[in-house]
Amino acid sequence: MVSYISVLILSFLSLIFTLDTFGQEAKTVFIDAHKLTLVGKVHHKGTFFHRLDTLANPNLPKAVKVLATHAAGLAIAFQTTSSKIAAKWCTGAGIPTDNMTGIAFEGMDLYIKRNDRWQYAGVARPKSHTCNEAEIVANMPAGNKTCLLFLPTYDETISLQIGIDSGTTIDPVSNPFKKTIVVYGSSIVQGASASRPGLSYPARLSRETKLNFVNLGFSGSAKMEIEVANLLSDLSMDALILDCVPNPSPEEVLARTASFVTTIRKKHPKIPIIAIQSIAREKGNFDTQVASRVLQKNNYFETEIKKLQQHDRNLYLIYADGLLGNDQEGTADGIHPNDLGFDRMLHKIRPMILKIFRRYGI
Amino acid sequence: MVSYISVLILSFLSLIFTLDTFGQEAKTVFIDAHKLTLVGKVHHKGTFFHRLDTLANPNLPKAVKVLATHAAGLAIAFQTTSSKIAAKWCTGAGIPTDNMTGIAFEGMDLYIKRNDRWQYAGVARPKSHTCNEAEIVANMPAGNKTCLLFLPTYDETISLQIGIDSGTTIDPVSNPFKKTIVVYGSSIVQGASASRPGLSYPARLSRETKLNFVNLGFSGSAKMEIEVANLLSDLSMDALILDCVPNPSPEEVLARTASFVTTIRKKHPKIPIIAIQSIAREKGNFDTQVASRVLQKNNYFETEIKKLQQHDRNLYLIYADGLLGNDQEGTADGIHPNDLGFDRMLHKIRPMILKIFRRYGI
Repeated sequence: MVSYISVLILSFLSLIFTLDTFGQEAKTVFIDAHKLTLVGKVHHKGTFFHRLDTLANPNLPKAVKVLATHAAGLAIAFQTTSSKIAAKWCTGAGIPTDNMTGIAFEGMDLYIKRNDRWQYAGVARPKSHTCNEAEIVANMPAGNKTCLLFLPTYDETISLQIGIDSGTTIDPVSNPFKKTIVVYGSSIVQGASASRPGLSYPARLSRETKLNFVNLGFSGSAKMEIEVANLLSDLSMDALILDCVPNPSPEEVLARTASFVTTIRKKHPKIPIIAIQSIAREKGNFDTQVASRVLQKNNYFETEIKKLQQHDRNLYLIYADGLLGNDQEGTADGIHPNDLGFDRMLHKIRPMILKIFRRYGI
Repeated sequence: MVSYISVLILSFLSLIFTLDTFGQEAKTVFIDAHKLTLVGKVHHKGTFFHRLDTLANPNLPKAVKVLATHAAGLAIAFQTTSSKIAAKWCTGAGIPTDNMTGIAFEGMDLYIKRNDRWQYAGVARPKSHTCNEAEIVANMPAGNKTCLLFLPTYDETISLQIGIDSGTTIDPVSNPFKKTIVVYGSSIVQGASASRPGLSYPARLSRETKLNFVNLGFSGSAKMEIEVANLLSDLSMDALILDCVPNPSPEEVLARTASFVTTIRKKHPKIPIIAIQSIAREKGNFDTQVASRVLQKNNYFETEIKKLQQHDRNLYLIYADGLLGNDQEGTADGIHPNDLGFDRMLHKIRPMILKIFRRYGI
């Protein structure tokens, strides 16, 4: 008797659920992101939402292989006539670190092109640490809109469907960003502590310059290992930015910088390589050990880059001074720039980078 | 036999733990924050870490009473000769929302005065959602340091002990901030989405101007109720900033603004009251309903304030334009400023506020 009632209740609940699902799907239809345009990858080998094909690079350091599964800097580009955009997505089960928002860690943000400029349109808020559904923007005026949805910065994106009004269209578009500029670096490149995915500094550079800045930031793990140098050597790219002083020890900076750069240079004899010193660690404002360690790394890096520059006129160095401003308010935790710190970084490095690129027709 | 061995093992573990604890306590000693200087409160009635004495104000809206238990804008001031500063603290069991970092929500950040300026020194990272212990800064040079530790923004602070090197001193200091400027407003005043507590905009204003900006930001709940007007009327203050357009409906803005201001004005006939329109909601860049709702609220607010200004020459209005800049990158979620948005707000409102204050000798 009990199990008969249970079956009845279950059937009834199932019916309600089905009707509800049908009701909802009549209003919003979902399309798999695989059918749209994936932007921000250096090549399209391997798993769709992974930054690198880690299976093809078995010798990479383990941490780098894991971090390469995070979709930092990747975005889905499409056009749609819908008045509303929603998303269903699943990520790994990672939990935001104390210096990041959930939106940056495992959520998404949407930009729409207007007046030839990418403008913020909405966020996909994560309610759980695995699978989520969210409305990103609604009540938009009629007409075709070109969209760019930035994927989660610090967790693996496992699946993504984009929702639109039923009866409207959604289509892939050509990649809005030209050339390939690889940015290799630490958590700061990957996107900590930007408040949402689209505010990581390579993503801002892409939108602001219309060039394709590829995010190869590996949180805590940008240590200039030879296996990573080999990987970067094999990539097809027009320029390379090295923001990789924060993670290695001073001794590693001294030991690895020259061989790292020369390994890549062999396969890319003429591209501009722009090396950036580490931002000041505000944690070192009063902690003298932290301050002297960062200073030592930056000094070693400068020495090594300058030695290489004697025989390499396509190698550039950007100094640390002023990268975060001078009021010590540009970080979330003394280590990672907040959005204010990133803005100040860009004010300094963007014109320097673009000036260099102009010499190369980039 | 088994339980005899268990007891032996437990006794042994207990002994190790005790020794370890003793070893640690020989290096770091903790002092209760109650013995130091609490900064940022409008008066010192009620529970130490609560912003208001909610028991004395039983008629306040329930949400406001709960939010008044959050220590947003409160800080502990002290001086110490220690080379290291640590903390043990307990908060309520709240979990960070998707638009905030854990550090802002339930962590702390420390500033130290150097060259007559408050400089960032370190963060107390929360490892759990209740009780935590963390080292904030270490390896500082010798000498007396004047410190300011900002408390968690979005959770109740239940207890706090500050740790220093054993054999060094820690003492209260006089309040470094003069006068009392009450800032009444929404989550934006309370501190979402600053990346850490000290980056909420009232806290930045206090450090930058040496005036005491009191944070009465009530997330989602700054709706200009008459009970709140009565509460504000009873406070002793030198100026009042009203940043309370974001939360009420357009109809509530229209219905409540005049009575809210006139109620407070009766008890404070000559203080400057500075009313600020709502920041643009970047969520409304493409969502036409959001955009028109914010516009309507700002229009109603302007109309009401202008009517009052005809008979009140100490009432000022700051317009919304340019509060977040013009690139739409100044929010974490289309609603709450990120640190870049707050910085832009301050660039606009700080000189306007200080110019007004000079007329009043503030």
